[in-house]
Amino acid sequence: AANDAIECSINGEYTVMCRRDTDRDEVFVPFSLVHKYFEIYGKITSTDGVDKFEWSHSYGKIYHPKKKYDPLGTFTTFENYNVEVRDRVKCISGIEGVPVSTQWEPRGFFYPTQIAQFGLAHYSKHIIEPDPKRRIIDDGEKHLENWIVSKDAYMARDYDNSVQSNVIRFSTSDHISSQVWLKVNLSQDFVLSVDIQMKPNSSMTVVLQNKDKKETVYLHYITSMQLISAQEDHISYGVGVDPNWKRITRDLIIDMQKGWALLDKPKRRLPRNKFKISSIILSGSGSLDNVTLSSSEHMHMFYNAARWLLRAQSSRSGAWPIPVRRRMAAGVAELKPGWHSAMSQGHAISLLARAYHASGDATYLQAAKRALYLLDVPSHAGGVKALWMDKYVWYEEYPTKPPLFVLNGFIYTLLGLYDLHIIEGENSISLAKKMFDDGMTSLKNLLPLFDTGSGSFYDLRHFTLGVSPNIARWDYHATHVNQLYLLAGLDSDPILINTAKRWEGYMQGKRAAHN
Amino acid sequence: AANDAIECSINGEYTVMCRRDTDRDEVFVPFSLVHKYFEIYGKITSTDGVDKFEWSHSYGKIYHPKKKYDPLGTFTTFENYNVEVRDRVKCISGIEGVPVSTQWEPRGFFYPTQIAQFGLAHYSKHIIEPDPKRRIIDDGEKHLENWIVSKDAYMARDYDNSVQSNVIRFSTSDHISSQVWLKVNLSQDFVLSVDIQMKPNSSMTVVLQNKDKKETVYLHYITSMQLISAQEDHISYGVGVDPNWKRITRDLIIDMQKGWALLDKPKRRLPRNKFKISSIILSGSGSLDNVTLSSSEHMHMFYNAARWLLRAQSSRSGAWPIPVRRRMAAGVAELKPGWHSAMSQGHAISLLARAYHASGDATYLQAAKRALYLLDVPSHAGGVKALWMDKYVWYEEYPTKPPLFVLNGFIYTLLGLYDLHIIEGENSISLAKKMFDDGMTSLKNLLPLFDTGSGSFYDLRHFTLGVSPNIARWDYHATHVNQLYLLAGLDSDPILINTAKRWEGYMQGKRAAHN
Ligand SMILES: [Ca+2]
Ligand SMILES: [Ca+2]
Repeated sequence: AANDAIECSINGEYTVMCRRDTDRDEVFVPFSLVHKYFEIYGKITSTDGVDKFEWSHSYGKIYHPKKKYDPLGTFTTFENYNVEVRDRVKCISGIEGVPVSTQWEPRGFFYPTQIAQFGLAHYSKHIIEPDPKRRIIDDGEKHLENWIVSKDAYMARDYDNSVQSNVIRFSTSDHISSQVWLKVNLSQDFVLSVDIQMKPNSSMTVVLQNKDKKETVYLHYITSMQLISAQEDHISYGVGVDPNWKRITRDLIIDMQKGWALLDKPKRRLPRNKFKISSIILSGSGSLDNVTLSSSEHMHMFYNAARWLLRAQSSRSGAWPIPVRRRMAAGVAELKPGWHSAMSQGHAISLLARAYHASGDATYLQAAKRALYLLDVPSHAGGVKALWMDKYVWYEEYPTKPPLFVLNGFIYTLLGLYDLHIIEGENSISLAKKMFDDGMTSLKNLLPLFDTGSGSFYDLRHFTLGVSPNIARWDYHATHVNQLYLLAGLDSDPILINTAKRWEGYMQGKRAAHN
Repeated sequence: AANDAIECSINGEYTVMCRRDTDRDEVFVPFSLVHKYFEIYGKITSTDGVDKFEWSHSYGKIYHPKKKYDPLGTFTTFENYNVEVRDRVKCISGIEGVPVSTQWEPRGFFYPTQIAQFGLAHYSKHIIEPDPKRRIIDDGEKHLENWIVSKDAYMARDYDNSVQSNVIRFSTSDHISSQVWLKVNLSQDFVLSVDIQMKPNSSMTVVLQNKDKKETVYLHYITSMQLISAQEDHISYGVGVDPNWKRITRDLIIDMQKGWALLDKPKRRLPRNKFKISSIILSGSGSLDNVTLSSSEHMHMFYNAARWLLRAQSSRSGAWPIPVRRRMAAGVAELKPGWHSAMSQGHAISLLARAYHASGDATYLQAAKRALYLLDVPSHAGGVKALWMDKYVWYEEYPTKPPLFVLNGFIYTLLGLYDLHIIEGENSISLAKKMFDDGMTSLKNLLPLFDTGSGSFYDLRHFTLGVSPNIARWDYHATHVNQLYLLAGLDSDPILINTAKRWEGYMQGKRAAHN
């Protein structure tokens, strides 16, 4: 028969049932085995009613650069990043406007690398996306809405000297039904910006409704230092207790999703078009102006990150200390809270260089230059520099002893150095340039050690610790390839382009030859 | 239906037809794809009438050592080697009694590594095999056969002063039918040994017959300097023109097969039991004694190799120069005729150490010690020593510039050093011991660089040349694993045993983890 079952013994270790086609002298093995054994991906797709099975060697995505990398332009492929939706982002801080990481500490902490990525992603999106749609809801002048004021509440518009504009003043009583609110029906754009000034125990609440399910979610922005809390349909973000005017810009869908995640509700990747904003409710007392809804506010997010980097940088060392413990591998002393990362420094430099370019504010440039020095301090002295075989400098994403030589973080650091060098003036002889050149020499010499013949290593821990190698999963491998294509545009040494091409081939199942 | 055909797109590059079992939500892919794509091996086997499909990740064989490696015992796993049957062995020289290689030069040359492997394989077989069966055909004393002497030929037995024994004297005329011959019917053992002394233009011919096909093959051992020639059923080996007594030991089946290979006849792996020896024919004039047939004569083969090594060693450098050109890789200058190999030196030392042990002849020990010095001469100065990053010594199988850091040849060299050290006395402070220790330090530090996460690299050319890595095929990978298990018995550093185990796992489809 053409399709007999036949037992298949896998390396003598276990068996699976296969099919045998004696007519064609072929044995068919179940794809579930191939998937498990080789980590090959497969799925059935349907086009015009015809099913097809798609076998994919890898899931990473390669972006072939169309032009030479520009330090003023998009940062690598970060226009494709959505840092805030990542599971390991607890939420966007209401006070700082930057993500809070739970990557190595469930309570959450400010992780400079992640914050810089958040900022660089928004900067990059700003460059490639069309101008956002913006709708001013109420600016106290041209755009005025009919706010509903309950009986024991108060609302008025008048001129505010500090913002030099007409603004909304509101005040409500302690009674729960006392509020100033605006009924709306907005289902397009979900990035809310508002200039706000609130007295203690005040809040602004945005009510979202699921158009299909009639589900209601209350996003409360409250005068508090708390990060986030959630209970049933109520999600609260502290926006600080500073009584001065501030501009708040919130992605309401992200704020809602992070609240759900906190409630351990099954992850709902609801498309934005399922929801509408049904009302905005003011409580306590304060002032309000320029209530705006946008499709995006990338530069605002970018400057949130840039300003956070200015505030958080150590003026002494130029470093952004990372306040959590990090255990990298057995046999390596853990990184103690306060450790530094070359990748944080490099990403921050990339961001600050762009902030300087975009704003003209030299404070950003000074911070970027200050960030360099740590890259020259050895890991054992609190810095991030390792030397490979006493010869090649390596900027360590994780400055462990012994060093790990993580590849992607090193290249990101090189990009920071390149960005600063170009911003300072391409023909300048700068510290950044020297550090970049030294790093490129290391990279070109050590890159082959990251080649597995069918993928890449994430780091060189097998060499420094003598342990099993740490293979890069496909998304990191794709990052390596994207980084190498970018660098190949800056440096004509064939090892860069050749390695990029070979490594891209590995993602389609090609392998280095055996002898 | 349960077995619909479904088109399967492989990485979007090409398609193959698969089978879909909708009942089980499974797709079955053809094993021919898996074989081609992943180099997995599969075959159908049958046990008690039940067919089974056997999926094999690799074809190498691992030998787990049962006891600590003994430099006086078998050499690694060489008891399993049959050097002379390899295609790249042209034949066994009738003059030298050692293999002639065609690996890089079709005319054939003496390759010290191969000769040493031949000797070490026979030494190892001698240790593990039972004593050979030996049948004395004619010794001129106790065992006497009825040789047939044609009319114008002569044969007699008398006492020979130089061998101090009764021997056969023979002489024939120029006429083709003039000969002295012995009819036999021997179908058991095919290693022929004979003490012989021949005048010019003499020969001894062994006639073999295929018992089934009545095919006849004539093996001529002639007074000539030629290596081998063959025409139709006649295969000739020169045994030299030295008029003195010599002992010739020939594996007749090997001699026949090499003749066939020379004739470009399809390779016939005929089992030894298909043939019989039907006669021995003497022609010309000379003397003969101790005509013997054995199941094996391993120690004789071993000493052939040992004596060749003594003769061929450079008295100045202690080296065995390799007389052919060798091109290793693009971007590397070719090795010029006369190059040296650390593996040749190491193997030779292993063999000579055993020859000294087995014979008590100090000449062998002196040659082994003399072989050390080349290992300390850098490749660029005609030696075989490379330094990795100016730090770790490497004994180069192929002393290219830049170096390649071939792993298996390096470890074989280490074993030579170990062997000599132990033979010299385990507690001696010797040069061999220091070189072994230095090499072990290199190995333990650099071994991780040979780990692909799913196999091993043959060398480090990707690092030294910046090219695609050179993955070890499974038989070389198995050699690496066997070598590491052996070394793990000598050195308790966990990297040796851990790497051996991990690498053995790779042969069953295990892989290093990805992040
Ligand atoms: Ca206004
Ligand atoms: Ca005799």
